Amino acid sequence: IVTKLPAVGTTIFTVMSALAAEKNAVNLGQGFPDFHCDPKLLEDVTAAMAAGHNQYPPMPGIPALRDAIAAKISAQYGHTYSAATEITVTAGATQAIITAILAVVRPGDEVIVLEPCYDSYVPNIELAGGSVVRVPLVPGSFRPDFDRIAAALTPRTRAIIINTPHNPSATVWTEAEMRKLEELLAPTDVFVISDEVYEHMVFDGARHESVARFPGLAARSFIVSSFGKTYHVTGWKVGYVAAPAPLMAEFRKVHQFNVFTVNTPMQHALAQYMAEPKPYLELPAFYQRKRDLFAAGLAEETRFRLLRSEGSYFQCVDISAVSDLSEAEFCLWLTREIGVAAIPLSAFYGNGFDQRVVRFCFAKKDETLLAALERLARL
Amino acid sequence: IVTKLPAVGTTIFTVMSALAAEKNAVNLGQGFPDFHCDPKLLEDVTAAMAAGHNQYPPMPGIPALRDAIAAKISAQYGHTYSAATEITVTAGATQAIITAILAVVRPGDEVIVLEPCYDSYVPNIELAGGSVVRVPLVPGSFRPDFDRIAAALTPRTRAIIINTPHNPSATVWTEAEMRKLEELLAPTDVFVISDEVYEHMVFDGARHESVARFPGLAARSFIVSSFGKTYHVTGWKVGYVAAPAPLMAEFRKVHQFNVFTVNTPMQHALAQYMAEPKPYLELPAFYQRKRDLFAAGLAEETRFRLLRSEGSYFQCVDISAVSDLSEAEFCLWLTREIGVAAIPLSAFYGNGFDQRVVRFCFAKKDETLLAALERLARL
Ligand SMILES: CSCCC(=O)C(=O)O
Ligand SMILES: CSCCC(=O)C(=O)O
Repeated sequence: IVTKLPAVGTTIFTVMSALAAEKNAVNLGQGFPDFHCDPKLLEDVTAAMAAGHNQYPPMPGIPALRDAIAAKISAQYGHTYSAATEITVTAGATQAIITAILAVVRPGDEVIVLEPCYDSYVPNIELAGGSVVRVPLVPGSFRPDFDRIAAALTPRTRAIIINTPHNPSATVWTEAEMRKLEELLAPTDVFVISDEVYEHMVFDGARHESVARFPGLAARSFIVSSFGKTYHVTGWKVGYVAAPAPLMAEFRKVHQFNVFTVNTPMQHALAQYMAEPKPYLELPAFYQRKRDLFAAGLAEETRFRLLRSEGSYFQCVDISAVSDLSEAEFCLWLTREIGVAAIPLSAFYGNGFDQRVVRFCFAKKDETLLAALERLARL
Repeated sequence: IVTKLPAVGTTIFTVMSALAAEKNAVNLGQGFPDFHCDPKLLEDVTAAMAAGHNQYPPMPGIPALRDAIAAKISAQYGHTYSAATEITVTAGATQAIITAILAVVRPGDEVIVLEPCYDSYVPNIELAGGSVVRVPLVPGSFRPDFDRIAAALTPRTRAIIINTPHNPSATVWTEAEMRKLEELLAPTDVFVISDEVYEHMVFDGARHESVARFPGLAARSFIVSSFGKTYHVTGWKVGYVAAPAPLMAEFRKVHQFNVFTVNTPMQHALAQYMAEPKPYLELPAFYQRKRDLFAAGLAEETRFRLLRSEGSYFQCVDISAVSDLSEAEFCLWLTREIGVAAIPLSAFYGNGFDQRVVRFCFAKKDETLLAALERLARL
């Protein structure tokens, strides 16, 4: 069979997690917590199942959960979406992103991605028949380069995918950067797919600049978020999309013929749990402490040069002073020989661009981070 | 925004379920049980969550569940798939079908669908850039018409989608029909997407003819099935695909960038629960009794002409003797005025072909079926 996706293998996250398990390495590769979620949330699932919520929910999600999502966005970002027509619950953020792309990208349309970027975006665009236009973030700082974005815009540009807090670089877009994007797109019909799955993980008092805060962006954007990341249940595969009604109508046409709808008991549990904003309001402090613990250890015990982690649950380091290996070979070697798994940044570039930087995930128990640091100290 | 799917509205199942709820009608429209699943299955989910199974599972599904699926297919249909490379757990059967289509259908490829058919197939093919080739099942009997299928095959045919037991007509393909398909496709490279979600619902001693039983079909097929339908948990959104390794490799490339993976605690619970085959072995008798109860009531109390339900959980009836309305208008009227929701067969045709037949779902408590019959007796 001639493949439709010749450039695609198994995701780097799957490869590294499998290798980490095989080698009994501390897995700081794939982004997921190794600690438990709030037991309350599990009780809410059990209660929902016992109440008989095990059959198809409404296609766009149960009303209580859509209401809770709309209320949260309104409280956090000051933009009110209609729960009826502008919010849809998805089977995770990955499914949200491909669905938005399939909904708007037509064969021949151009879609701008800012590299490095999450590895699903490019194959998603290709499956929709679109052309991928790769614009690099500024090398070293990973900030958006608006001159290059402006130069990439053409009459065929259909959408741009942005991601803040950013995976893998852990940068967070500023208000000024968001305004720049808003101005740049003002004269165009370009849609924005805004991957905001790390929205509740921003550090040092910075705030998350959702596209929902910027009317000129909100009007053209699909906002994507993830309950897995916010509530430490990545395996539940529940996320959501918010978008203006005409965009959401197109999104739902595809959604209903992709997954149709999303796990009922988990939706009920999440609706229940969201009544209390404390868990996500406490998330920045929770993860900032982990970042600080891990970053301090790296600074003291290793010769890695640390990049600043402004948000997300990732810490990037420059490996130049430690190794001559390529990023990818270094990560394999680190997993096999030192017993710590990491992700090469080259996996987030179409051409495998290697800048001597790898990514660690610090969404881990303190003891896991300390065990990793102990091993990394051997370097 | 110019839509990519101009022919697509909200699915008929969503429309009718919403109307049924609004009018307080007995909902025999959308296919889902209104009774509870085995409480044991719910306990297994609670146990899996408590054991900490709430983070990403492996991308193709947890090994225990893939092993259980491979063992079941082998025991039932005598074909052994590799759990490692030939089985993938999906977020329901709908997601399985679009993923198989996106994996193999290239722009310009032709895909044969047999009408009437489930409403996701056609938009799925269109999203992949394929051309839909509609071949009708034999009017009245809904059996496959191999002369017409043969006539529809061209060098551009990439795949054919089949579905047995059949939704909406409730026919079940015979061994002879499966052999005919096997022979017809033998000289071609055409893939088969075999929607077998009702595999455990076949009546009167008939057996389900999975493509897995026919080597010439198995070698070219994606088999799709659904735990929601088999275990009365349609809201859990867990299904699976089995296919030969080279096909599965392509499937997984798309799957990982569509949903990435599927709800972890439900996977653990299903793996646990599948150890015991009794629940699905008892399903034919369980649903045959409901079919008989409902069909006998319809025959006694109404002037509908019953089509034979050989499998699935659907009963079709010809409405000619009862009403002059179109199928769709009859279903709306029946829901509003009589208080029973049904689905028009015209919703399963691209051109809205109306043959005076509507579909009832009998996956309901006996009391629900009796309440519906009482209302239908007023006709
Ligand atoms: C869906 S697996 C990858 C998890 C993740 O977001 C990451 O590690 O970048
Ligand atoms: C996914 S909603 C439709 C359920 C079903 O399979 C049907 O009613 O035909």
